[in-house]
Amino acid sequence: MREQFYAYIQRLQDTITQELEKIDGEVQFKEDIWKRKEGGGGRTRVIENGAIFEKGGVNISAVHGELPEVLRKQFNVETGDFFACGLSLVIHPKNPFIPTVHANWRYFEMYNEIGEIVTQWFGGGQDLTPYYLFDEDAIHFHSVCKNACDKHHKDFYPKYKETCDKYFWNSHRNEARGVGGLFFDYLKETEELTMQNRYDFVTEIGDSFLQSYVPIVNRRKDITYTQEHKDWQEIRRGRYVEFNLVHDRGTLFGLKTNGRIESILMSLPPTVQWKYNHHPEEGSDEAKLLKVLANPKDWV
Amino acid sequence: MREQFYAYIQRLQDTITQELEKIDGEVQFKEDIWKRKEGGGGRTRVIENGAIFEKGGVNISAVHGELPEVLRKQFNVETGDFFACGLSLVIHPKNPFIPTVHANWRYFEMYNEIGEIVTQWFGGGQDLTPYYLFDEDAIHFHSVCKNACDKHHKDFYPKYKETCDKYFWNSHRNEARGVGGLFFDYLKETEELTMQNRYDFVTEIGDSFLQSYVPIVNRRKDITYTQEHKDWQEIRRGRYVEFNLVHDRGTLFGLKTNGRIESILMSLPPTVQWKYNHHPEEGSDEAKLLKVLANPKDWV
Repeated sequence: MREQFYAYIQRLQDTITQELEKIDGEVQFKEDIWKRKEGGGGRTRVIENGAIFEKGGVNISAVHGELPEVLRKQFNVETGDFFACGLSLVIHPKNPFIPTVHANWRYFEMYNEIGEIVTQWFGGGQDLTPYYLFDEDAIHFHSVCKNACDKHHKDFYPKYKETCDKYFWNSHRNEARGVGGLFFDYLKETEELTMQNRYDFVTEIGDSFLQSYVPIVNRRKDITYTQEHKDWQEIRRGRYVEFNLVHDRGTLFGLKTNGRIESILMSLPPTVQWKYNHHPEEGSDEAKLLKVLANPKDWV
Repeated sequence: MREQFYAYIQRLQDTITQELEKIDGEVQFKEDIWKRKEGGGGRTRVIENGAIFEKGGVNISAVHGELPEVLRKQFNVETGDFFACGLSLVIHPKNPFIPTVHANWRYFEMYNEIGEIVTQWFGGGQDLTPYYLFDEDAIHFHSVCKNACDKHHKDFYPKYKETCDKYFWNSHRNEARGVGGLFFDYLKETEELTMQNRYDFVTEIGDSFLQSYVPIVNRRKDITYTQEHKDWQEIRRGRYVEFNLVHDRGTLFGLKTNGRIESILMSLPPTVQWKYNHHPEEGSDEAKLLKVLANPKDWV
């Protein structure tokens, strides 16, 4: 399974970066190959200052070795080796009318002393963070998520949609990071589902990513915007930073386990503003977004 | 002691905001009075878009009530009431040649069931975060800190200077936030020192603040700067955000105990940039700063 999934995310990284480069038309991803001292490494691809994409990363990594202490505590095991691989992406478009998107699909294995797999699971998801809310964009994104889920189990979409709303919750602001999507974790073998079923599901989701996001980019990329729109985008990007640095388990895990900082923090937006106690005008498009973020809704 | 220190920080807030307004010359602090549902409140004063100060806050608060759960765990007590008051300030100047400064002086009391004080202490400190390093500025800041400390105990400056270097360490970047200053906490009564001695020390430090920072502002405020200098300042401000949101105990405590978010996050800079894997040119002024941040040094 580890070879199968790692091969998959390598192909998917190629597919996604090629398509995003085609859309941008001006700049290409820059690739950095890195090694992890304790075992494994990654292939980071970052795009910056494009015509469409102001900053973004589509990164893969596959790491292995002795289980780091934080994970030993978390999983309540004395010792053990692990393998983990995944693809993580965050795209921050320049135009404030195009939403930011994040996705991550990952696979994890743990071994006993003689190298047998004792536990294995998939995790991941994707979520959309608009600065100006077009209902049809949120509906489109969620529809693609739902269709991909429904091919595998009718319970998946409602369950993972709800988990996503709960996970991407900026609790200190009492608001969602964006309009959600999917979030799932610890997808293990069950009586009903084999690991191959899990693989088929996660790769279905991965394969649907471009379809969920690209039509939104194309619909919004030519809308003209003002400095005020850009300011609002940058203020909202501040909330994105707050979520990632205060609440996001993946980011904090990376920072505390000596992960490759630049690959982890590629998720942070290129330009950000913090204004004291900023509130948009009642009835404005900006206020309309905040209303929806305060009460996550069902889009499909 | 609580009345005495709270009266002190009210006066100090006035002194500091009046002096900073005079220096700025263009804009004034905006005041927000807020109440805490569980008891107490604060007086937040924020300055924005000034001629000299791009964003800054000089806030006081005095809160009381039942000890929040996180603190009960931390202090290993079942129950109890508390009182805490303090002044917190962060100043982000516009000109990249003027350093950012942070300071905080606070007092804490805990009570038993019949309302007697069971423990009380002072904490606080101040630290300087330059974007371009002028040795004489770091030396001046530390000299003022040292002189104030030396009036009270010869061990204070070396001890609190070292604690400051350790505290303001961005461990995931392996670098200091800035050139340090002082950091002290749990200053309790000892055989040698009464609470009044502690009060005298902390207020000596508070009183020395303007003297430690204002001469630096005056020396640097008229240096002309380019967009490149501003970009560097904004990139470094990103590290400031990373420290405050990932590592700063005070910030995280506030976010997790339902503190007044806008008063806590006034510390975040007005405009910030994150570039992927940015490294200044070898031998540049920017690289010179990084060298010092990687190895905190003795300034006096």
